[in-house]
Amino acid sequence: MTGRDGGADLAPLPGSPTVVLVRPQLADNIGAVARAMANGGLFHLRLVAPRDGWPQERAWRMASGADRILDDAAVFATVAEAVADMHHVYATCPRPRHIVKPVLTARGAAAELRIVGARALRAAILFGPERAGLDNDDMARADALVRFPLNPAFMSLNLAQAVMVMAYEWWSAADETMPRVLMTNETRVANKGELENFLGHLMHELDESGFLRNAPKRPGMVRNIRHLFERGEVTQQELRTLHGIVTELSLGRRQRGREEG
Amino acid sequence: MTGRDGGADLAPLPGSPTVVLVRPQLADNIGAVARAMANGGLFHLRLVAPRDGWPQERAWRMASGADRILDDAAVFATVAEAVADMHHVYATCPRPRHIVKPVLTARGAAAELRIVGARALRAAILFGPERAGLDNDDMARADALVRFPLNPAFMSLNLAQAVMVMAYEWWSAADETMPRVLMTNETRVANKGELENFLGHLMHELDESGFLRNAPKRPGMVRNIRHLFERGEVTQQELRTLHGIVTELSLGRRQRGREEG
Repeated sequence: MTGRDGGADLAPLPGSPTVVLVRPQLADNIGAVARAMANGGLFHLRLVAPRDGWPQERAWRMASGADRILDDAAVFATVAEAVADMHHVYATCPRPRHIVKPVLTARGAAAELRIVGARALRAAILFGPERAGLDNDDMARADALVRFPLNPAFMSLNLAQAVMVMAYEWWSAADETMPRVLMTNETRVANKGELENFLGHLMHELDESGFLRNAPKRPGMVRNIRHLFERGEVTQQELRTLHGIVTELSLGRRQRGREEG
Repeated sequence: MTGRDGGADLAPLPGSPTVVLVRPQLADNIGAVARAMANGGLFHLRLVAPRDGWPQERAWRMASGADRILDDAAVFATVAEAVADMHHVYATCPRPRHIVKPVLTARGAAAELRIVGARALRAAILFGPERAGLDNDDMARADALVRFPLNPAFMSLNLAQAVMVMAYEWWSAADETMPRVLMTNETRVANKGELENFLGHLMHELDESGFLRNAPKRPGMVRNIRHLFERGEVTQQELRTLHGIVTELSLGRRQRGREEG
């Protein structure tokens, strides 16, 4: 099988749930699912009665290096066999059905899956076939349904996209990245004193040039300029550049002043 | 163009951001992007210098009915032209680069995009070409970078998957679905009195049958049975079924009792 010895160095993360594709139709989609699983740190893949049999070379071609997930994928004849060793089963279900069952958002399910995993219990997430989705018997085997909050005016969700959302939420549930940070690399965010130092330099040159000559308006103009520079997180490197700009732009006036004087 | 007059009845939602695909390579991916946008309620699509020109029939075939997004897509020669009428620009960027710029998670960006949209300002999200991603000049035009929290051991994120995560987060940012609810349809969750009524029925039959005959152990056994039934949200319909089961299973003993008595 092409690519079977290649691909990224993937391994199962502790407590990660198993993705179960129920009667998947297209090998392309199975490959794309493996890729999405790798993006979200999932590894265990099970296939229930794949329509075109297994393995299928096209899956490896679509997996963009998530080969090990496909290499390790196990095939089962029925959902019952695929979940027999699981402690919890979640069924993804785009459309409302007349069943009495807890319904979770992807985010709610991800939070539960993290807890289940931390308790060393095994969990599976069922994804139905491309066209029809899971049938009622499949869903009756689940502890809970997972329904993604998405545009009800366009419910056609690609299989790999559904797995992507679930894998992304699973990864995000343990992610501690700040929702917004300033990436500064070698330089650092300037403190207010350093900013004040620059504003002093700028105001001095603006006074010298006559830009602030209107005395009654001067305080308001100074405040407006200050507002602009206080707004963002200016870095030390950027302040050095700004000092340089002010010095450079002031040079002509100074030289002319010397010539005239 | 095939499918140009068909597809789902999609329209722009107020305040929804514009997706800008910068130098996209594959028409298949552009179609899959449109589908993912529709899933997340996005509508405005711009293409900067698509490699194979535009329009491309394959895009419509991959869009699964998100035709109107493709019909309305606008093509630009440069990023500068594509964002000229925008007030905010976000650039998706999988790898860290040496630039001083705010970096947001997809969720953080979605929250900001909702605020920007509510203020009637226009925002664009840039997505780079499939292989290389955005270049440094593209990113210099952005207010902020968006980096998805995903498995650093497998960074190969499909273009449509990246758009899916962003669109999903944009939709979710305004979604108020409870993370976990019990879907009950026509029936309702039983209250504690209704549950008590069933447990009384069950205990009566268990006493009659002799199952609880060990007097010292009886309180503990009753408590254990109660623990099981109190754990989930039992519905009124399920209680009726349970009453029926207990009655039916007790029938043989009763009949035998009558025969023997």
